[in-house]
Amino acid sequence: PPPAEDAFPASQQIMVLSESLNATNVQIQTLQEQYLELDRTNRLLVAEVLSLQRMLRAQSQASNELISY
Amino acid sequence: PPPAEDAFPASQQIMVLSESLNATNVQIQTLQEQYLELDRTNRLLVAEVLSLQRMLRAQSQASNELISY
Amino acid sequence: PPPAEDAFPASQQIMVLSESLNATNVQIQTLQEQYLELDRTNRLLVAEVLSLQRMLRAQSQASNELISY
Repeated sequence: PPPAEDAFPASQQIMVLSESLNATNVQIQTLQEQYLELDRTNRLLVAEVLSLQRMLRAQSQASNELISY
Repeated sequence: PPPAEDAFPASQQIMVLSESLNATNVQIQTLQEQYLELDRTNRLLVAEVLSLQRMLRAQSQASNELISY
Repeated sequence: PPPAEDAFPASQQIMVLSESLNATNVQIQTLQEQYLELDRTNRLLVAEVLSLQRMLRAQSQASNELISY
């Protein structure tokens, strides 16, 4: 092998890459947890918006009945 | 090469790293798809909330007119 | 080293892996930025939905007072 390889051999480069990949996998795990949290909030928001639509429709109907009365 | 290298040579370590990186990339692709799905739901929620705000304003105005009448 | 190693030596395989991991990390950074944007939109939506709930409750109360009057 050339002198450069001796100064920074494959085994060391592999170790650096392996550590870098581990750091990457930690970031992905964090993103997965953040995604799950956002997904949970989004489902709550969908339920709340559907509930608001129902309430608004009921109120609109009550107002119309009041007006015709 | 030292005996340790012989037992688990660079080529094998590289193969393990390569497979690990492939698994990482599959996880990222899943996260990207989940992000797109959440983004789609979020846009629908923004549209629904804006629509609810308009409806509520219209109903509030109608109520005020009813009261002054 | 065997001829195969000569044709595609460890140092080259490591370089390819390293570049692949860099590309992976760029994708993760993009996902992190997209997550932050979605999180920001989600917080705005939560605030808007809470505001709509308050407005709707106030309007419902006003309607009830109007009816009893």
